[in-house]
Amino acid sequence: MTPVPADLYAEVLHFYARQTHALDNGRLQEYARTFTEDVVFHHTPDAEPARTRAGILAAATAQREANQADPVQRRHHFTQVVADLESDGTIRTACYAVVVRSRPGEKHPDIWPSCVVRDTVVLDGSTLLVAERTINYDYL
Amino acid sequence: MTPVPADLYAEVLHFYARQTHALDNGRLQEYARTFTEDVVFHHTPDAEPARTRAGILAAATAQREANQADPVQRRHHFTQVVADLESDGTIRTACYAVVVRSRPGEKHPDIWPSCVVRDTVVLDGSTLLVAERTINYDYL
Amino acid sequence: MTPVPADLYAEVLHFYARQTHALDNGRLQEYARTFTEDVVFHHTPDAEPARTRAGILAAATAQREANQADPVQRRHHFTQVVADLESDGTIRTACYAVVVRSRPGEKHPDIWPSCVVRDTVVLDGSTLLVAERTINYDYL
Repeated sequence: MTPVPADLYAEVLHFYARQTHALDNGRLQEYARTFTEDVVFHHTPDAEPARTRAGILAAATAQREANQADPVQRRHHFTQVVADLESDGTIRTACYAVVVRSRPGEKHPDIWPSCVVRDTVVLDGSTLLVAERTINYDYL
Repeated sequence: MTPVPADLYAEVLHFYARQTHALDNGRLQEYARTFTEDVVFHHTPDAEPARTRAGILAAATAQREANQADPVQRRHHFTQVVADLESDGTIRTACYAVVVRSRPGEKHPDIWPSCVVRDTVVLDGSTLLVAERTINYDYL
Repeated sequence: MTPVPADLYAEVLHFYARQTHALDNGRLQEYARTFTEDVVFHHTPDAEPARTRAGILAAATAQREANQADPVQRRHHFTQVVADLESDGTIRTACYAVVVRSRPGEKHPDIWPSCVVRDTVVLDGSTLLVAERTINYDYL
């Protein structure tokens, strides 16, 4: 593995910015399209992973509906992105993530949890897609 | 709109880093020069925007003077920057912002609010300048 | 001083991401190798700086051992990176830093302190290394 070149590194940062805006702004179709069709998403330790782009969309939609009684605005901050290139052209990334949660009328957001997100990212033409994601919570 | 190329994306990130350091370190002339002469700055929903570079400088100076009784050190963290190029060469950006506030003797900073900052950025030669800014608070 | 070119800026961001992961994940040899052999590290105002790569490694190892009774997971978030190129080829950087601390079973991390990190970074071949670091705490 070698660090990705500078231009690809900038594209990886931009990719994560777009993915988080799509998720947090409720553009769930756009969010789902940042994953491969056959993605495996290990969202919770020791639980079955979510699978496929359609599965990600279904899970995100279900979560949005579950949250409708609680009008929280979540903002996923992904920082400290490390990105390495494998010999087969896939990219292995790791970044820090915190979720900043705001509620109507409460100026101070609630910030939790802190996680590490590790992705396998593939290039589909010039488009980056997450093929596998593993989230590790720092408090577990 | 298409995503900005990788090198311009890096320059946009660098621009925001410089702008926030100038503001938070009280270099207000330098901060004001990151906006166009005829900038429109929608800082508060439903309020009149600030206008012109001179207006931004006057407002920032007034805020600094109002804060002199309260020695808070603010740090604007701008993350998750999305940047798209319009056909006319202007750049539309959106990023997440939180302000980290430290006070003398208090090790734990106060973190608020969480916002989304949306800018129209123009190139003046090789210099990026904000021509229009709109801030949306997540708690409103 | 002039801003570093876009590709070098991306490399500087990537460098800091790797350095923080190495430190926070306890890969202290790798962390120490992100500094020059004769680095000077001003970690605390008015205290003697740490000196040399071996000194950094010894200090980080001692801190890890001191923390063994307290299983905190620290995550250093370095944001708003400004990077300028000197005429002699060294890079002067400044960034904002906060440390996000998680403890087992506590979903909400503890976030402190807020600092500004200022580095002199040199190129050793194609490798970036910190030759001097000064940390300024916002609450002091």
